[in-house]
Amino acid sequence: MAGDATETRKKLLAAATEEFAARGIAGARVDRIAAEAGANKSLIYSYFGSKDGLFAAVYDAQVVLTIDAVPFTADDLPGYAARQFDHHRLHPTVQRLTTWSRLERGTDASPIEAIASSNIRKITAIEAEQAAGRLPTRFSAYELLSMVLAIANMWATGSHQPPGAADIARQRQSIIDAVKLLIG
Amino acid sequence: MAGDATETRKKLLAAATEEFAARGIAGARVDRIAAEAGANKSLIYSYFGSKDGLFAAVYDAQVVLTIDAVPFTADDLPGYAARQFDHHRLHPTVQRLTTWSRLERGTDASPIEAIASSNIRKITAIEAEQAAGRLPTRFSAYELLSMVLAIANMWATGSHQPPGAADIARQRQSIIDAVKLLIG
Repeated sequence: MAGDATETRKKLLAAATEEFAARGIAGARVDRIAAEAGANKSLIYSYFGSKDGLFAAVYDAQVVLTIDAVPFTADDLPGYAARQFDHHRLHPTVQRLTTWSRLERGTDASPIEAIASSNIRKITAIEAEQAAGRLPTRFSAYELLSMVLAIANMWATGSHQPPGAADIARQRQSIIDAVKLLIG
Repeated sequence: MAGDATETRKKLLAAATEEFAARGIAGARVDRIAAEAGANKSLIYSYFGSKDGLFAAVYDAQVVLTIDAVPFTADDLPGYAARQFDHHRLHPTVQRLTTWSRLERGTDASPIEAIASSNIRKITAIEAEQAAGRLPTRFSAYELLSMVLAIANMWATGSHQPPGAADIARQRQSIIDAVKLLIG
């Protein structure tokens, strides 16, 4: 019955992704996740150990999906920022999970492995561009990455949006232009 | 007993600020807030109408405190961004409330009056600088404000901080340098 177990695990992860994205870690109910997945609640504990373990599995999987969907291009940071914007606009789940994690797990929580290794790869790639003289060195690679991500996400995290301001094409262009200035 | 009522209202707001910042809207418990304030739970409903009403009162008050503590200087956006960073580092409450609000109330929620009016003042001030030729017009005033805030908050919202990266002076300087490039 290994196939059934894999199927059940998948259903639990899918239900948990919805539940955590909508309600956060404290707000999520394992009963609701189990019911939604049509599975026994005890399976959550055997597969994932705890509600926190389930959250980590959900978050890690979503991060991996995002990393695969938005390839990092150190030689085209404006394009990367724009693609990150496109992806998050259509798939807001990973950003919501990131934000819940920051609020609820804090910065002391053990980092998600997929994020940590992806960041190291991104920073290494930026450093290579800097060493080759194709990116300025006024900022460290880590600072540059942080700025690019802050700009890429500015329209998603802003709470200061006046009505009618959500012109997607304009938002996307402003991200490209801002990153160009930062690396110009 | 108007003095007592004012005092009780203040204590409820103080306890609610702690509770909402730590646990968010759904996670906050009015019982805990009332107990912490040494007040009867029913007073929360007579003073604020509901848990959501209490959150709005808490959030509005924190926003007003932040606006007073960090004056907006359209003629010195790098300095404004740095002071915003300083304030949020020492007083993370308002950023946590902002983030909970975004996650839990969504973007359709009625905006906090203090935020809406403050943003209009900021945008008007940037537009005046643009009209006077002291700020570039490649971005709208609203886009420029959004970028400045995204950069000012990049070290608080980043979930990608490697250990040891939190050199405060360096973070502050990188914010100033980035905003200078955006308005240069």
